[in-house]
Amino acid sequence: MTLEILDAHPSPSAHLDAIKAVVEAALDCVQCCTSCADACLAEDGEMDLAHCIRTDLDCADVCAATATVVVRQTQPSTDLVRAQVQACKAACETCAASCEEHAETHEHCRICAECCRTCADACDRLLAAL
Amino acid sequence: MTLEILDAHPSPSAHLDAIKAVVEAALDCVQCCTSCADACLAEDGEMDLAHCIRTDLDCADVCAATATVVVRQTQPSTDLVRAQVQACKAACETCAASCEEHAETHEHCRICAECCRTCADACDRLLAAL
Amino acid sequence: MTLEILDAHPSPSAHLDAIKAVVEAALDCVQCCTSCADACLAEDGEMDLAHCIRTDLDCADVCAATATVVVRQTQPSTDLVRAQVQACKAACETCAASCEEHAETHEHCRICAECCRTCADACDRLLAAL
Amino acid sequence: MTLEILDAHPSPSAHLDAIKAVVEAALDCVQCCTSCADACLAEDGEMDLAHCIRTDLDCADVCAATATVVVRQTQPSTDLVRAQVQACKAACETCAASCEEHAETHEHCRICAECCRTCADACDRLLAAL
Repeated sequence: MTLEILDAHPSPSAHLDAIKAVVEAALDCVQCCTSCADACLAEDGEMDLAHCIRTDLDCADVCAATATVVVRQTQPSTDLVRAQVQACKAACETCAASCEEHAETHEHCRICAECCRTCADACDRLLAAL
Repeated sequence: MTLEILDAHPSPSAHLDAIKAVVEAALDCVQCCTSCADACLAEDGEMDLAHCIRTDLDCADVCAATATVVVRQTQPSTDLVRAQVQACKAACETCAASCEEHAETHEHCRICAECCRTCADACDRLLAAL
Repeated sequence: MTLEILDAHPSPSAHLDAIKAVVEAALDCVQCCTSCADACLAEDGEMDLAHCIRTDLDCADVCAATATVVVRQTQPSTDLVRAQVQACKAACETCAASCEEHAETHEHCRICAECCRTCADACDRLLAAL
Repeated sequence: MTLEILDAHPSPSAHLDAIKAVVEAALDCVQCCTSCADACLAEDGEMDLAHCIRTDLDCADVCAATATVVVRQTQPSTDLVRAQVQACKAACETCAASCEEHAETHEHCRICAECCRTCADACDRLLAAL
């Protein structure tokens, strides 16, 4: 990820390392959650993956919005950044918990849960820094 | 907006009217905030619209994610819905406040602020119902 | 939809009516396709809705991007607008065809197919005007 | 980027390496173009960056939709994938050309142009494989 572009911003934030970690993890979650939902759709069998797909889709959408809000450095609103990062943490924890139930059966669920935990941790560290 | 599709869901939520209002208002905000940011870019003159553009872009992204999370009725996580709707309310209030500063000079800012206030109110009503 | 904000743009396009129709139809598709995918997930029974869900998700994503590209009036690239509107038409036609297979069984598929056909028609009219 | 999740899909595509390259490059473009638009907003001075910001915003939106469409492996529509990847290539080439005009003055424009060229190349290779 070409995160050094953030170092070229004319007025970067004080918490640039924590921000970069959220941006990277959130965009990785967009990809993992979209892929996991799609792989769940293609699975045969009786296991009910509807809840897993639903949490994947929510998590992908929330992470995409969080990445773009957090990447912006120009005159940010701390209240909005905090609220969106909290929503992102909630989305990632919900999705991780759902994917972990299928982690032993489906490798894509195991990988996706790991992506989501990484992003939830990055959100936590940014929330602590704000 | 073809919101009657939500009435065709096999397991609709208890708060369907409040949900429909958020979905409609949030997608209207995606359009208004994207258009206002773009119109601000095309304005001549010395007024600094950078803050207005930034809050427009955040609001469009957050409202888009909120609309899709809230539209989903299958096994929702109330914690995530609440957190995302709170972030949406924060985004709309931030953007409305910024656009209101230019509402007398720029008609697109006046309209966009109104869109955002409508969406913030819809978020409030859904938060009260959850 | 607060489409009069486009009339307040300092340098509006020549094809504003065709543009407004695409913006409105594409955002309606974001909502219909997201809702149809979610309703499909909640359906019991043996019918295979995986293809329908997949085309719904693609259509929602492509329509969202198309709406924001088309709403922007400031120094547009006609090549990009044309390519994105063509992709939108392809997404809507693919999704409509898939939903139409289930339209008699699932009301949400019937409504979603109608949304997608409306958007494909709006794309056609804008492509003819460009 | 956790692209090995695509290897865990129950029915992966024939062109998985070309697909992975587009997904990675497109999500990198979402981040670069969002960051470049935001950095342009914060720049002082007389240079007109409106066109650069506009192409950045389009490119971020189109790349985000392309990444999720391309990541999905379940029963894809080749027509839609091709149309969306062509739109992505157009968005990246438009944005790269605009950013290259400012590459000597603004490091974020130089980095963003490079991101966009990488993504346009990945799109070309996937189009050749389809």
